[in-house]
Amino acid sequence: MKNVSIDTLTDAVLGYCGKDTDPRLMQLLDGLLNHMHAFAKETKLTHAEWLTAVEFLGRIGDISTPTRNEYVLLSDVTGLSSLVDMIGSQHAGTSSSVLGPFHILGAPDLPVGGDLKQDNDGATVIVKGRVRTPDGTPIKGAVIESWQTADSGLYSNVDETQDDYNLRCSIKVGDDGAYSFSSIRPAPYMVPDDGPVGDLLHATGRDAWRPSHFHFIVVAQGYKSLVTEVFPSDDPYLDKDAVFGVREDLIMNYVERTSLDDVPDGLAIDRNVTMPFYTVDFDFVLVPDEA
Amino acid sequence: MKNVSIDTLTDAVLGYCGKDTDPRLMQLLDGLLNHMHAFAKETKLTHAEWLTAVEFLGRIGDISTPTRNEYVLLSDVTGLSSLVDMIGSQHAGTSSSVLGPFHILGAPDLPVGGDLKQDNDGATVIVKGRVRTPDGTPIKGAVIESWQTADSGLYSNVDETQDDYNLRCSIKVGDDGAYSFSSIRPAPYMVPDDGPVGDLLHATGRDAWRPSHFHFIVVAQGYKSLVTEVFPSDDPYLDKDAVFGVREDLIMNYVERTSLDDVPDGLAIDRNVTMPFYTVDFDFVLVPDEA
Repeated sequence: MKNVSIDTLTDAVLGYCGKDTDPRLMQLLDGLLNHMHAFAKETKLTHAEWLTAVEFLGRIGDISTPTRNEYVLLSDVTGLSSLVDMIGSQHAGTSSSVLGPFHILGAPDLPVGGDLKQDNDGATVIVKGRVRTPDGTPIKGAVIESWQTADSGLYSNVDETQDDYNLRCSIKVGDDGAYSFSSIRPAPYMVPDDGPVGDLLHATGRDAWRPSHFHFIVVAQGYKSLVTEVFPSDDPYLDKDAVFGVREDLIMNYVERTSLDDVPDGLAIDRNVTMPFYTVDFDFVLVPDEA
Repeated sequence: MKNVSIDTLTDAVLGYCGKDTDPRLMQLLDGLLNHMHAFAKETKLTHAEWLTAVEFLGRIGDISTPTRNEYVLLSDVTGLSSLVDMIGSQHAGTSSSVLGPFHILGAPDLPVGGDLKQDNDGATVIVKGRVRTPDGTPIKGAVIESWQTADSGLYSNVDETQDDYNLRCSIKVGDDGAYSFSSIRPAPYMVPDDGPVGDLLHATGRDAWRPSHFHFIVVAQGYKSLVTEVFPSDDPYLDKDAVFGVREDLIMNYVERTSLDDVPDGLAIDRNVTMPFYTVDFDFVLVPDEA
């Protein structure tokens, strides 16, 4: 455009798009370009700052691998991932929270009441609850996938000393919607801060710590799939999660126990239970899939 | 934050930043996060769409190399690069325009009046003009760097058939601020559209063509450096440049000539001049560097 100006450029870019463009793509581009251009105009973004941003993105690309997604980490620490989760969680069910970069496919099956702790160090925790609808009806046949850190704060897929699927499982609930398993308390950990996103955290004086949590994906036919994580009420990092994943309804109480009599019914805990151990009661509430 | 919500998240993220954060970085983050979060909220961005965006950025990282910067290309086709250029060009000097991805360091010196055409195919063009201030004072000692496509539409650094520095030069102007050189008319070309940015262009029915142009960087001590490009008034793509680089003051007339008598004085054009040939008169206007 010969006569393009600061004020007409955004409409010029959008105007170049053809009439056959998918309406939702057009809506997203309209919003994104208007906001990006407004940002540049309001801050009077300089060419040097633009170049710094381009180099920053280049470093994000360079450090990313199949097991380290620095783009997702950038989205996480800037709150965008949590915002998208919250936008998609405006219903009566359990809140979504960040998937994070440590999920891998193929978690092995574990029966209800099974033990995930095995030879892992760490305090024993027994997690139980139900998968149900908002009005309390059990959801038969729901499948719960869980993954967590070892006591070292590391996930199995980034730690050579752990088996590939250590502390990962997939549990199919019974007709009563109930699930339970024994494991260890997950440990708090820092998000990777040795790359460009870490540089951003350091430049802004921010913490890289995340409170300890179990990750869960819960799926059931006819219901909206739930990707979430669940945090203990006593974690020191609960109010300064680097990726803003904590929600009020995702906080659970770890109840300290000192007697095997307190092991929930139906759990064959004739195993390596350390004392004290902890019990957690947490229901996953799914909402019907409208789609 | 236990009680973080869609409405409080943006302030929560900004509130995590320490008080010692550089004020300009804080200002940029404030603007960027507010706009990015507003975009997600206004469009009700879904997790699936967010994932598509993450994968798109991942593909941009994967395809980028030292000689192909797909991040810059994305910034270019979305108008952001041109917007930043225009924000920085609000003065009485020649407008800036996109640097583009084809600049390489180390262009060889060419004397004023020298020939860049050499054995290249294409119509001869003689470019001349002055480097001056807005009030017409010549700027002694200014250095003009120029690069352009061959007749094939390709730059030397992405075409194995060309010498490394073909059609690239660095000219130091005389005391009168005057410069001139002979070359070929650059050719229109398409920006690379075989990667993710090309997919975006195709999905929105957009053209990948750029009008033909000379790239210039003009530097002189005490003046703001100028990065720009100059377009012929007769180019068919002048009004649909894929990267929005055209400005009214960057359009020049190619005057068609059929006699060597029309070669400007002082230019030793006893060389490979094709007929008809073209002359261009274009001044670069620099403004004092306030910094």
